[in-house]
Amino acid sequence: MKISELVAQIRKKKSFLCVGLDVDMDKIPAHLLQTEDPIFEFNKAIIDATHDYVVSYKPNTAFYEAQGIKGWQALAKTIAYLNTNHPEIFTIADAKRGDIGNTSGMYAKAFFEDLAFDSVTVAPYMGKDSVEPFLAYKDKITILLALTSNPGAFDFQTLKTGEDEVYKKVLETSKKWQNAKNLMYVAGATKAEYFKEIRDIVPDSFLLVPGVGAQGGSLSEVCKFGLNKNIGLLINSSRGVIYASDGLDFAEAARKEAHKLQKEMEVILSVN
Amino acid sequence: MKISELVAQIRKKKSFLCVGLDVDMDKIPAHLLQTEDPIFEFNKAIIDATHDYVVSYKPNTAFYEAQGIKGWQALAKTIAYLNTNHPEIFTIADAKRGDIGNTSGMYAKAFFEDLAFDSVTVAPYMGKDSVEPFLAYKDKITILLALTSNPGAFDFQTLKTGEDEVYKKVLETSKKWQNAKNLMYVAGATKAEYFKEIRDIVPDSFLLVPGVGAQGGSLSEVCKFGLNKNIGLLINSSRGVIYASDGLDFAEAARKEAHKLQKEMEVILSVN
Repeated sequence: MKISELVAQIRKKKSFLCVGLDVDMDKIPAHLLQTEDPIFEFNKAIIDATHDYVVSYKPNTAFYEAQGIKGWQALAKTIAYLNTNHPEIFTIADAKRGDIGNTSGMYAKAFFEDLAFDSVTVAPYMGKDSVEPFLAYKDKITILLALTSNPGAFDFQTLKTGEDEVYKKVLETSKKWQNAKNLMYVAGATKAEYFKEIRDIVPDSFLLVPGVGAQGGSLSEVCKFGLNKNIGLLINSSRGVIYASDGLDFAEAARKEAHKLQKEMEVILSVN
Repeated sequence: MKISELVAQIRKKKSFLCVGLDVDMDKIPAHLLQTEDPIFEFNKAIIDATHDYVVSYKPNTAFYEAQGIKGWQALAKTIAYLNTNHPEIFTIADAKRGDIGNTSGMYAKAFFEDLAFDSVTVAPYMGKDSVEPFLAYKDKITILLALTSNPGAFDFQTLKTGEDEVYKKVLETSKKWQNAKNLMYVAGATKAEYFKEIRDIVPDSFLLVPGVGAQGGSLSEVCKFGLNKNIGLLINSSRGVIYASDGLDFAEAARKEAHKLQKEMEVILSVN
């Protein structure tokens, strides 16, 4: 998918909401556990109920790998369901991969060819040759971790190196890589003022923003500093949407939460 | 497995060789492609032929994920084969995972419980709470990327921050984490002089060393600076051993290569 198609979808749905499909067997409604593939049934119900308000779904691979082969199968079924029924949706494999060149190429093959995701999240620690095999896919998007939303972000990402912090070096350096126009960045929402500095370095890039809601970030603050002329933001919510209820009404409750977020986004888009 | 058991195995086999099971369908012998599970058949033959000279096997997950469900199944069969037939072998899932706390916990479950590896490689970029869920497993080892062996290592890992480079901050900071005695570190062999500085910070820790051989590192140079009183080194070879031949004699050729490396190690151990 091209970024322009994502922007068109955002304008049409008046939403820049991404929903994280982080399926935890301990949190999904008990009645689903009786089905043959509880993870896929959960995802299908959430997707069916929320897709009017959502431009992107983001399964985090950890939750699937924790269930072994069945989990990997459920991930494959989920992405196939999305690609077949909602080809306009921007799909993200939240995998945070990264390895030496030829090995990263294998991860790129896994997520871009075998599973056919539109994008994958990648860790920057191993540098240029660990990321460029993903960028080599011309119609795919690589989402590089810059500043994450967890407490550990302040262990290494914000260390000062010369004038700048490490995460700013990641932003600056990655701009020079082959096919860098297909990069997006993960930028955590825990401190909205960071978005101003991030926008100084990558004014035109899309930012995938975790940490709004459950983790404490403010949507309006993030938008104040983060929006650009192409919107340029994907705001992720996982638990707040998909676990809005653990009863029979879980999908309907997820739809209500997604709609609530979409309405907030519609207001923000109308004045920007 | 406890580190003391690994040390005992090293002393018994007079080897600190780790073999990377990076199974590339384009490189394995053609006759295996006719079998039902070429990846597992290849691994089984390599393990059967080399285990006398090897203390650790390290499948890199990328190569398995690139083959989809079948790849994941082959990985599960490989680790089960090792755990059943060679419980003394130290197994490493070279997965380079890392995510926010509860999500890293899912990865830990995947590799330590579901697949039952002895250890997993973890990326440090997301900091303390992304690594501690792995460390929470008392009888498992977490192998943290410090300085990798690829060209991109010099993009961010060697940036100066205050007095020290980022990779040294990773070493120093991680020593303070919960259950840090169960940490090992990835330390690339491309520049042996780095090992001296690494040993100043982590004198007692095991280092997993890629980049000897194919990537240009020298075994004797690495050992000169890297060995400690418990040996403290696992030297990895992947392509040099497993692809020593692509003919019917591939397993025998791998055994010869592994034996050659083991003999070099025996000489080094005899004078240290």
